[in-house]
Amino acid sequence: MAAATYDVLGIGNAIVDILAKADDDFLVSHGMTKGAMALIDEERATAIYKAMGPATEISGGSAANTIAGLASFGARAAFVGKVRDDQLGHVFGHDIKAANVVFETPAAKGGAATARSYILVSPDGERTMNTFLGAAQDLSLIDIDANQIAASSIVYMEGYLWDPKDAKDAFLKASKIAHDNKRIVALTLSDAFCVGRYRDEFLNLIRTKTVDLVFANEAELSSLYQNDNFDAALAQLRNDANLAVVTRSEKGCVVAAKDKVTAVPAFPVKQVVDTTGAGDLFAAGFLFGTVRGMTHEQSGRLGALAAAEVIQHIGARPQTSLKELAQSQGLPV
Amino acid sequence: MAAATYDVLGIGNAIVDILAKADDDFLVSHGMTKGAMALIDEERATAIYKAMGPATEISGGSAANTIAGLASFGARAAFVGKVRDDQLGHVFGHDIKAANVVFETPAAKGGAATARSYILVSPDGERTMNTFLGAAQDLSLIDIDANQIAASSIVYMEGYLWDPKDAKDAFLKASKIAHDNKRIVALTLSDAFCVGRYRDEFLNLIRTKTVDLVFANEAELSSLYQNDNFDAALAQLRNDANLAVVTRSEKGCVVAAKDKVTAVPAFPVKQVVDTTGAGDLFAAGFLFGTVRGMTHEQSGRLGALAAAEVIQHIGARPQTSLKELAQSQGLPV
Repeated sequence: MAAATYDVLGIGNAIVDILAKADDDFLVSHGMTKGAMALIDEERATAIYKAMGPATEISGGSAANTIAGLASFGARAAFVGKVRDDQLGHVFGHDIKAANVVFETPAAKGGAATARSYILVSPDGERTMNTFLGAAQDLSLIDIDANQIAASSIVYMEGYLWDPKDAKDAFLKASKIAHDNKRIVALTLSDAFCVGRYRDEFLNLIRTKTVDLVFANEAELSSLYQNDNFDAALAQLRNDANLAVVTRSEKGCVVAAKDKVTAVPAFPVKQVVDTTGAGDLFAAGFLFGTVRGMTHEQSGRLGALAAAEVIQHIGARPQTSLKELAQSQGLPV
Repeated sequence: MAAATYDVLGIGNAIVDILAKADDDFLVSHGMTKGAMALIDEERATAIYKAMGPATEISGGSAANTIAGLASFGARAAFVGKVRDDQLGHVFGHDIKAANVVFETPAAKGGAATARSYILVSPDGERTMNTFLGAAQDLSLIDIDANQIAASSIVYMEGYLWDPKDAKDAFLKASKIAHDNKRIVALTLSDAFCVGRYRDEFLNLIRTKTVDLVFANEAELSSLYQNDNFDAALAQLRNDANLAVVTRSEKGCVVAAKDKVTAVPAFPVKQVVDTTGAGDLFAAGFLFGTVRGMTHEQSGRLGALAAAEVIQHIGARPQTSLKELAQSQGLPV
C-alpha cells in the first residue's frame, strides 16, 4: 500500500444551497415534507424560488460539506463532483478550493445548470431541502481518476449518488479501485427517503462489503431495515456492516463495531439556527479521527463537535477552524 | 400633489455581495484600504476572488439595502438598478422582490455580468469592499420611469451613482421629476472616497437644492468639507443643506435641520459581526420615520435600530422584520 496523498476523497453531488427562512405553513402550503430532501425539476425549482423569501447562497452538497469539514480539521482532502461552467458553478468551485480541498472535476461546458438546493429553514432550525440536480446528473465514470482514488486513505461517498443516472457506476468503480489499493470505503445513507428509494441496493453494498464504514441517522437506520426499534435495527446493521456510526441528534451517536458498541454524547449547543449539514459535519469529524487512528470515542467526539459548530449558523460548512475549535476543547487533532 | 403609490423609491447600483472573513494581513497584502469601497476591474475581481476564503453570496447594493430595509419596516418601496440576465442577476431580482420591493428595471441581455462586491469582513466586523460594477455601468436615462418617480413620496439615491458613466443623468432626471411633483429627494454620500472623487458635484447638488435631505457619516462629512473638525464641518453642511443626518457609529447620529440640531443615541449591540449595510439601514429607518411624519428623534431611533440589527449578522439586509423589531422596542411604526 503506497503512502496516501489524500486522507479522504469525497464523491457527491456538487450543489449550491439557496437558503431562506420559512415557517411551517409555507412547507405545508407547498407540499413539502419537513426535514426531508425532495428532488425537483426545473419548473418546480422556479416556482419554489419565486415563493421563497430573500435568500443566501452558500456552497453545499452533502459529501462536499463533509470534505470541507475534513479540510477544516487539517486533513488532506479532495472532492469529485459535477458543476456547469456557470456563475453558480464558479461559486461552488471557488468555495471548495478556498476551503483547501483539491477539486479537479471538469465543469460541464453545456447542458443543465449547476445543481441548486432550495432550503427552507424553519424557526426551530430544521431544514427542508428541494434539490434540482442539474449538472450533477452528469457525473459519470470518466470523472473518476484511478490514481487519485488509489492515493486516498478513505473514499467517502453519499447515497444521494444513486439519484443521478450514471453516478452509481462512478461509485462502484471508485470502491473497486480503493479496495484494490487497500483503502477504506465509507458511505453515508444520506436521507431516509433516499434509503427508501434504494434500500435493496444500499443493503447489498453493505453486505457485499463494497463499503466498509456506514454513516446513518436514526431515521435512515429505521428506513434501511424497515424497523422502528432502534436497538433491533442497530443489531441488524452491526451484523451487516464492518463498522457503522448512527447519529441521534441531541443524544449523540453510537459507533457499532463487530467487537463493541460505543455511545458518544453530543456537544451542548446554545441555539440551533440551521441544522443543514449536521450529519455531513459529524461524518467529517468521525472520518478525521479514523484516518488519524483515533479511538471510536475520540472520533465520535470530533464528529459531535463539528456538528455542533455547523448547526449554530446558517449554511452547511464550518465558519471557524475545526482544528482550532477542537484544540480549544482539549480534543486531539 | 397626487397621492403617492410608493413611500420611497431608491436608485442605485444593483450588486450581489460576496462576503468572506479575512484578517487585516489579507487586506494589507492585497493593497486594500480597510473600511473603504474600491472600484475594481474584472481582472482584479478574479484575483481577489481567487485569494478569498469560502464565501457567502447575498444581495447587496447600498440603496437597494436601504429600500429592502424600508420594506421590512412596512413601507411601500420600489428600486431602480441594472443587472444582467445571468444567475447573479436572477439572485438580485429574486431577493429584492422577495423583500416586497417593486423592481421593474429590465435586466441587460448582453454586456458585462451582474455587479459583484467582494467584501472582506475583518475580525472586528469592519468590512472592506471591492466592487466590480459590471452591468450596473449600464444604468441610464431610459431606466427612469417618470410616472413611477412622480408617484414616490421620497426618491433616495446613492452617491455611488456618480461612478457608472450615465447614472448621474438618471439621477438628475429623477430629481427633476420628483421636484416637479413636490416630492422629496434624498442623497447618501456613500463613501468618503466617493466624496473625494465627486466632491464639487456633490456640494453642487446640495447647494442647488437638487437634493433636500443628505445622509453622511463622519468620514464623508469630513471629506466633503475637507475639514476634520466635526462641529465646524457640520455647521457647513447645515448651512448648505435643508436637512442632513450624520451618523457617528456607536455615538449615534445628529440630525441637522435649519431650526435645530438633534442628537440621537445608537442602540446597544451585543456583538458586531459585519458592519456591511450599517449606514444603508440607518437611512432606511430614518426615511421610514420621515415619510410617516415622525419627529427627527423618532426617525433617528428607527435608523439606529435598523443599523443595530444589520451589524449583528453577515450581510447587509435585515434578517428579521424591522416592523416587529421596532414594535418590540416600543417604537412607533
